[in-house]
Amino acid sequence: MKNLIVGQSGGPTSVINASLAGVYYQAKKIGYNKVYGMLNGIEGLLQDKIIDLDEYFTNKDNLELLKRTPSSFLGSCRYKLGTIKDNEKDYKKVFEILDKHSIDSLIYIGGNDSMDTVASLHDYAVLNNKKQNFIGVPKTIDNDLPITDHCPGFGSACKYIATTLREIIQDNMVYGDTKKTVAIVEIMGRHAGWLTASAALAKDETCPGVDAIYLPEGTFDIEEFVKDVENLLKKKSNIVIAVSEGIRTEDRKFVCELLDANLKTDSFGHKELVGCAEALGKILRDRLGIKARPITLSTLQRAASHLVSKTDYNEAYHCGMKGSELAYKNKSGYMVIMNRISTNPYKIKYESYNDIHKIANIEKKVPNEWIDTKNNYVTQDLINYIKPLIQGEVKQIMKDGLPQHITKKEN
Amino acid sequence: MKNLIVGQSGGPTSVINASLAGVYYQAKKIGYNKVYGMLNGIEGLLQDKIIDLDEYFTNKDNLELLKRTPSSFLGSCRYKLGTIKDNEKDYKKVFEILDKHSIDSLIYIGGNDSMDTVASLHDYAVLNNKKQNFIGVPKTIDNDLPITDHCPGFGSACKYIATTLREIIQDNMVYGDTKKTVAIVEIMGRHAGWLTASAALAKDETCPGVDAIYLPEGTFDIEEFVKDVENLLKKKSNIVIAVSEGIRTEDRKFVCELLDANLKTDSFGHKELVGCAEALGKILRDRLGIKARPITLSTLQRAASHLVSKTDYNEAYHCGMKGSELAYKNKSGYMVIMNRISTNPYKIKYESYNDIHKIANIEKKVPNEWIDTKNNYVTQDLINYIKPLIQGEVKQIMKDGLPQHITKKEN
Repeated sequence: MKNLIVGQSGGPTSVINASLAGVYYQAKKIGYNKVYGMLNGIEGLLQDKIIDLDEYFTNKDNLELLKRTPSSFLGSCRYKLGTIKDNEKDYKKVFEILDKHSIDSLIYIGGNDSMDTVASLHDYAVLNNKKQNFIGVPKTIDNDLPITDHCPGFGSACKYIATTLREIIQDNMVYGDTKKTVAIVEIMGRHAGWLTASAALAKDETCPGVDAIYLPEGTFDIEEFVKDVENLLKKKSNIVIAVSEGIRTEDRKFVCELLDANLKTDSFGHKELVGCAEALGKILRDRLGIKARPITLSTLQRAASHLVSKTDYNEAYHCGMKGSELAYKNKSGYMVIMNRISTNPYKIKYESYNDIHKIANIEKKVPNEWIDTKNNYVTQDLINYIKPLIQGEVKQIMKDGLPQHITKKEN
Repeated sequence: MKNLIVGQSGGPTSVINASLAGVYYQAKKIGYNKVYGMLNGIEGLLQDKIIDLDEYFTNKDNLELLKRTPSSFLGSCRYKLGTIKDNEKDYKKVFEILDKHSIDSLIYIGGNDSMDTVASLHDYAVLNNKKQNFIGVPKTIDNDLPITDHCPGFGSACKYIATTLREIIQDNMVYGDTKKTVAIVEIMGRHAGWLTASAALAKDETCPGVDAIYLPEGTFDIEEFVKDVENLLKKKSNIVIAVSEGIRTEDRKFVCELLDANLKTDSFGHKELVGCAEALGKILRDRLGIKARPITLSTLQRAASHLVSKTDYNEAYHCGMKGSELAYKNKSGYMVIMNRISTNPYKIKYESYNDIHKIANIEKKVPNEWIDTKNNYVTQDLINYIKPLIQGEVKQIMKDGLPQHITKKEN
């Protein structure tokens, strides 16, 4: 009888728990005995903080609730294991705990940093003849993992962004030509502009769409930006602009740094970005004397489970299931990937990629040919790429007018 | 044959167009000939900017789309007519235009300031023996109109706030005890705390709820606030706090003024508030050295039509219908009100109030007995009052994964 442990790591998404549900469901189905969850990822595992998922999910209603609960049910961490050479103690501890609970397989659901953890654990097992195997299941709203066509979590974030932008665009038109209004909507994505690009989906025959989109891949030129807004305002009174939180000026300074130099750095060395829309709003008010409202979509981009894409939700679940299948076959150092067979009709295949080192720590950015030459919009090809990922809705489990979630007992 | 004109004014809501749909539908049904819409409220009417609503809404599909479109379809304004004595020119112009189009009845959908406009037009008609009649239909997410039990628009905003808070609370728990996290969620409502109070609805057996709620009715004491947060963090690692944008310190300064004294004032003399959550976040970071994330729900509170309450949506529609009925009976200076017959089971009656002067410019605040004695939460009575208003969901009209809206041809 084999046992499995699963963890979640990095920033949450609105469907990361659907992947957890897929891991659990399929692991039990194909014959794993125990399916454990590590609390707060590898950081919790190092402290032997694990739970038996049967406690919650032999109850099928709970499994349905889990699939609809945003954030990471098991909790997350941003703990970095470090290299095997510099940090052998941690590695030894992990395997001690895996051995103690007779755990054969470990599945880690996460993004770039999490895949680095999977790669390192796999390397340690190979080097030290350990029997355990390690599998990565992709997750990130940022869509910046290479090799897989896209990542679970991305489609739902896009659906949230495009839906709320339609509403923001309607709201911003309310004073019509009686008042010039500019809404600047700040969207997540530090280095990769995939999410910000999804703003382009808002446009159709019933919605004028956003008027400009600035991705972090290009250089953000403040003079060009002010000129863009001036030109747009000559044609229409009410404009909405989408900007990535990570846009930078030519000297590689984040635009938000123009307002506040006191950025904090998290344990991976990433800067915590705040206030780029705020900074641009201030610039427009000062330079053009117009009302400019900054709107930061904030954590709801990754947490709005009431608005998940059914496509994304199903894919997240299936990626989890595929993870358990790979684990059961003793694959190690693999990541589940999605391979797009065709866009129209949309069809993907769940596959595996056998060298997770080529995924870990590599950020897939929006390619140049998908960014408009004027660097303030995206191309139709990019819109076509995203469109299938936002299709379909998932019925929430409602009670008293609000969606129900599931939380761990200790909470 | 009688003709009617309808306008929308003030800040939009996600169901103000449902009221417009109700006005149009019922007006045509009971026998009005033409139903006109004024563009951008009284400001557009003064410039004779009016449209014939038959152009759009004899098509029933369009009427269904209208009910699901956020913001004000006809556009809005914040134009204040001023007193009859000081501004007779405007009043003469309004009646000239009404006479020109043979308009008998005017319905204005709006909040406090809009009801002031209705009252003034009614007064002018009485003083000058004009035949036209004037009716107000309530609308405001702030829920601050007196006499009516509550206002259309409020319930949907509450549903949006409680739903997204559940998601924010899940997201904020993701690092568990490994990291102390405070999310400060800023909610609309300049002087009345009704909307902020709706944060209390997030709590149930599956959600720990928000940990503190600060309304603008009380005095906000920064020292007490820091102490509240310190005490909460002794008991749990992850806390979420709801604050009204309008909280003020003992000297009546807005908390956001602590960060930025450059507030702008709109044409009604209201200050535009920004950044109270930001100011509090900075205070917590400086004083307690903890991660404090400000989240501003922004315009989505009033525009998130994808998450309207069916109860609110139906009530908004019926208030519009009732407005047309009152207009057709030649009532003038009336506002449609909702009278709550019982809370459990929830039952309201659509009625009318015959002296709109007693509604105009009066703000209904949260009564003291519904605010916790410690001034950082609300009572069960207030929760019971709001709960029926968020019940039920409305199916959106989806296309390609996104909700459809309707916009005016010129857009």
